[in-house]
Amino acid sequence: MNEHTRFDDAFRLRLHDLFVWRRDVRRFRSDPLPAGTADRLIGVACLSPSVGLSQPWRFVTVDDPARRLAVRDAFQQCNAEALKSYSGERAAKYAALKLAGLAEAPCQLAVFADGSTEVGHGLGRRTMPEMAAYSAVAAVCMMWLAARAEGIGMGWVSILEPARVNAILDVPGPWQLIGYFCLGYPEAESDEPELERAGWERRRDPQSCILRR
Amino acid sequence: MNEHTRFDDAFRLRLHDLFVWRRDVRRFRSDPLPAGTADRLIGVACLSPSVGLSQPWRFVTVDDPARRLAVRDAFQQCNAEALKSYSGERAAKYAALKLAGLAEAPCQLAVFADGSTEVGHGLGRRTMPEMAAYSAVAAVCMMWLAARAEGIGMGWVSILEPARVNAILDVPGPWQLIGYFCLGYPEAESDEPELERAGWERRRDPQSCILRR
Repeated sequence: MNEHTRFDDAFRLRLHDLFVWRRDVRRFRSDPLPAGTADRLIGVACLSPSVGLSQPWRFVTVDDPARRLAVRDAFQQCNAEALKSYSGERAAKYAALKLAGLAEAPCQLAVFADGSTEVGHGLGRRTMPEMAAYSAVAAVCMMWLAARAEGIGMGWVSILEPARVNAILDVPGPWQLIGYFCLGYPEAESDEPELERAGWERRRDPQSCILRR
Repeated sequence: MNEHTRFDDAFRLRLHDLFVWRRDVRRFRSDPLPAGTADRLIGVACLSPSVGLSQPWRFVTVDDPARRLAVRDAFQQCNAEALKSYSGERAAKYAALKLAGLAEAPCQLAVFADGSTEVGHGLGRRTMPEMAAYSAVAAVCMMWLAARAEGIGMGWVSILEPARVNAILDVPGPWQLIGYFCLGYPEAESDEPELERAGWERRRDPQSCILRR
């Protein structure tokens, strides 16, 4: 084993800190990220394993103000629809949540999976075609952690109609939206998920999600 | 900003090494992992963000030899079917690939997403119900990296019929298989994906998967 493949206890402790600190951020400062940050983080994302080495991830950086505004409108409409599905106290709680940072986040990008790619020659996707999307999610997760290690938060927005996002961003129809992401420096740091602080939901004991067979 | 939320250049360099070193391993030594490893790694997985804090990940540790054998049979059958979809040189290459470590890996577990969970009150899943599966994938990615930092490889097996795996492991029908995972110490360490070394596919330039809008 080469020394570069070995990690020590000090690194593992810090890595654990990285996992603990919250990275799915909704409240951003509006100051810009250093030039080249998005491309650099995308480079890290592409270090992810992918099914059959198909590398089906597609990244769309969104800088055009008109497109950003269209995404924000799409979110607001979708979020208003979502609010209607709650009632009473739960609806009041939902209405008070901040679920995206589309107005403030200085860097925005959409991630898609191209399930039609011939790269990888279909390996591992015959019975589980959803593996293309999962590979794109894995790439997002690398980015999430790399960003956090630089003090950058990355909010995953899924309160959107995927087809509408494809149209706004003018990307091929078969590309499957994985998420729309807001990146920027967070207003505050926390080791507690914002939805827990807001009383929306609480974290469960990991043991409760393990079965033995 | 608290000092625990700050990461330095030395940590970021090692984190980059961690991303580079391959963790989706197929060739395992058969010596066991330290007692409690699977549960500890599952604990790390549960530190992942999840849509609406729904925590829809479900982990099934598989120790029963009969169930392990049944999964291996299911894989072999599925893999034989997959081989039939290739011809000529590509078929020869496929036949020569080692795509799972089901006979050797000392630790095995399946990961599912429970899209029917009411935890999280449906937040973020109305227009993108697939977010439950993506949250489970994110949990797997945390595990992948935490395992690798301990020198443990984790091979993601998707050459399986999901319904058959649910039946073999006797888990609720609505649970969606994310993958079946082989964990163990790798026979060898590498910074090059095994499918690249085997000439199956090559890595592409990240720039080729970025669009600007």
